[in-house]
Amino acid sequence: MPSTTRKNVLLVYAHPEPTSATRHLVEIAIQTLEAQGHTVTLSDLYGMGWKAVFDANDFRTRVNPERLAFIDESGHAYATGSQTPDVEREQAKLRAADAVILLFPLWWFGMPAMMKGWIDRVWAFGLAYGYQGAGNAYRYGEGGFAGKRAMLAVTVGGPQIDYSARGINGPLEQLLFPITHGTLFFPGMQVLPTFATYNAARIDAGRMAAIESAWRTSLRDLFDAAPIAFRTQNGGDYPDRHVLAEAVAPGRTGLEAHIKT
Amino acid sequence: MPSTTRKNVLLVYAHPEPTSATRHLVEIAIQTLEAQGHTVTLSDLYGMGWKAVFDANDFRTRVNPERLAFIDESGHAYATGSQTPDVEREQAKLRAADAVILLFPLWWFGMPAMMKGWIDRVWAFGLAYGYQGAGNAYRYGEGGFAGKRAMLAVTVGGPQIDYSARGINGPLEQLLFPITHGTLFFPGMQVLPTFATYNAARIDAGRMAAIESAWRTSLRDLFDAAPIAFRTQNGGDYPDRHVLAEAVAPGRTGLEAHIKT
Repeated sequence: MPSTTRKNVLLVYAHPEPTSATRHLVEIAIQTLEAQGHTVTLSDLYGMGWKAVFDANDFRTRVNPERLAFIDESGHAYATGSQTPDVEREQAKLRAADAVILLFPLWWFGMPAMMKGWIDRVWAFGLAYGYQGAGNAYRYGEGGFAGKRAMLAVTVGGPQIDYSARGINGPLEQLLFPITHGTLFFPGMQVLPTFATYNAARIDAGRMAAIESAWRTSLRDLFDAAPIAFRTQNGGDYPDRHVLAEAVAPGRTGLEAHIKT
Repeated sequence: MPSTTRKNVLLVYAHPEPTSATRHLVEIAIQTLEAQGHTVTLSDLYGMGWKAVFDANDFRTRVNPERLAFIDESGHAYATGSQTPDVEREQAKLRAADAVILLFPLWWFGMPAMMKGWIDRVWAFGLAYGYQGAGNAYRYGEGGFAGKRAMLAVTVGGPQIDYSARGINGPLEQLLFPITHGTLFFPGMQVLPTFATYNAARIDAGRMAAIESAWRTSLRDLFDAAPIAFRTQNGGDYPDRHVLAEAVAPGRTGLEAHIKT
């Protein structure tokens, strides 16, 4: 049964075309989530003219004016409240969010630069990594975004079969592992399976109705569905915080060894 | 024995700090390759002020002024010679290149937005995908960049053990598969194993000497080393161009099934 508690949901999306499939999924999400009583906040990155490139202009005061080291400056800016206002606004939205949905077209098997630049800049040292000044003590299941849920909604040009278990592109969830595991679970979010729309350049009315229906179901289940069972760093599977214990997924290597079966 | 034929090598790199480890690897590459008689071309994306965001400004004439569909407009702009001059310059460098090396810091297990935006914009429809107007007939081993070699050189904040076969982040080459396989091999490049520099924020002189030596060896071997043995689409392993034949890597799924063993 879907949760009836009212929650805050942040939608972040990266497509400039108002009639795109990506934007259509955004509209459906707003309708569906608000109809459930949730509060929706939107970050329309193209519409906002989001600055995608992480550079020296991100640091208004510098711990080292001579040499730009991103980790040091990100940590300093975050700790001293001297981040740029646009980054602070996005972090405030994240703090208020119970769930975050990232919607984007899959370009070269990853995020558009616009979306990647939102991560690069907003995922600050001290917040999304280096949490509590404790190095990597808290990561993968714990950290600055613990307690939040996350989901990707991607539109894909190609057919589903190319992304299937033995499809030529590789399985979609493995291609997205750097994002789901490495970017969202890393700072503590619980990540739901990806909502994928294939053949997104050619969607007729009949197929769109089916996509909308499936999307509404995913959204209604946002706070109840089982997240991807990524192993937490500090739950016992990585005794040294670096490598899987021998007894965990014995003999297996690769990305899927980091998911409980 | 290293090849003695003179070649053209394009270095593309994304880091704004002149004293960064990334930039240091660029300098070593220029020296080493030129000493071998090769011609080196540099795309310093931060230095060039590269426009990372792919948007409506990329299309000076539009096949459809009403609705921005990237694939359609990219194909039209490429076919009609109406791409933006910055994109045309990068494609000219690529056409002239026998090998391309992408150098970047690994941010959230992928490219910085700056580098991703170089791919998003330069990898045009008709050139890097949709080659010869034939849909996906030519991809993975064939296409607009066939005959070229490619290599990634990444600097990584964390320790190597976290990226090992059972390391908590996942194995580095699997995290990079969307780039090596999906971005470079897709349009036909032969991709060499990644040159990775770990713990890149703290490199003392002794370790830097060892890194430099290993990097020079990789560079000298650029045209001779065995590429990653990705399976070609049209070599027989994907009879329907979508899924591995049952007899190929039988019973295996996931990214590694697409590499010959």
